[in-house]
Amino acid sequence: MSYDPNNIFARILRGDAPCIKVFEDATTLAFMDVMPQSDGHLLVVPKEDAAEIFELSEAAAVACIRTVRRLSIAVRAALQPTGVVVAQFNGSDAGQTVPHVHFHIIPRWAHAPLIPHARIQADRGRLEELASLIRSKLVDDSLA
Amino acid sequence: MSYDPNNIFARILRGDAPCIKVFEDATTLAFMDVMPQSDGHLLVVPKEDAAEIFELSEAAAVACIRTVRRLSIAVRAALQPTGVVVAQFNGSDAGQTVPHVHFHIIPRWAHAPLIPHARIQADRGRLEELASLIRSKLVDDSLA
Repeated sequence: MSYDPNNIFARILRGDAPCIKVFEDATTLAFMDVMPQSDGHLLVVPKEDAAEIFELSEAAAVACIRTVRRLSIAVRAALQPTGVVVAQFNGSDAGQTVPHVHFHIIPRWAHAPLIPHARIQADRGRLEELASLIRSKLVDDSLA
Repeated sequence: MSYDPNNIFARILRGDAPCIKVFEDATTLAFMDVMPQSDGHLLVVPKEDAAEIFELSEAAAVACIRTVRRLSIAVRAALQPTGVVVAQFNGSDAGQTVPHVHFHIIPRWAHAPLIPHARIQADRGRLEELASLIRSKLVDDSLA
């Protein structure tokens, strides 16, 4: 999958497209998936242009997992799911739909099947409410 | 999911159970999944005792993604899949089966459906052959 600088995540990173932001630091951005597979489905993207993990620098991969770990802890504290899936797809045959590296954080609940990805646009108010809940549980333990 | 020190990955890490090793450093181990979902299915585990990402230290999460990135690059070079899935499951409702943090690296090929996980034991000779191919493509670009 080749990098297209006009992909939706690149536009969000440039501020040319909106997102419901949950967390941002110098090297990563985390926001709500607008077509979530479950309540609280988050995306974490590096601020480096890379379509797949193969082209991503080690530093950017490290930045991503720091944010993924931190957000996974926050999403569990906020929504109390019984499981959390972390997934990163490379190539359309692996399920990747946007050519900018992204990590999914998908809360799971027993007996609640996943909604098919990228099919149903979620209610914006509901996404804002979930984002607010998750933000309220963010803890910086990177120095712990 | 609580940590059980006798889980299979803990036993592999202690040398009490065998594995087909692909890579090891001071903080992580990578080996072939013996019930793979596709050819070249790898697991990356931290040497830290943690059942889920919520209990994993940031340093161990960073160590894992370094190894995951490096192995993803090697598996693509070795087997030339058309996609690679990276996934890490927390809790049985998320698909976790062993209570020690592990990242799956699952090569995908167009039109080849995934084998259901943890059902079919792979041929050991075939796993050794795949491990050897992947090892031959390992490159240390961590200083790049």
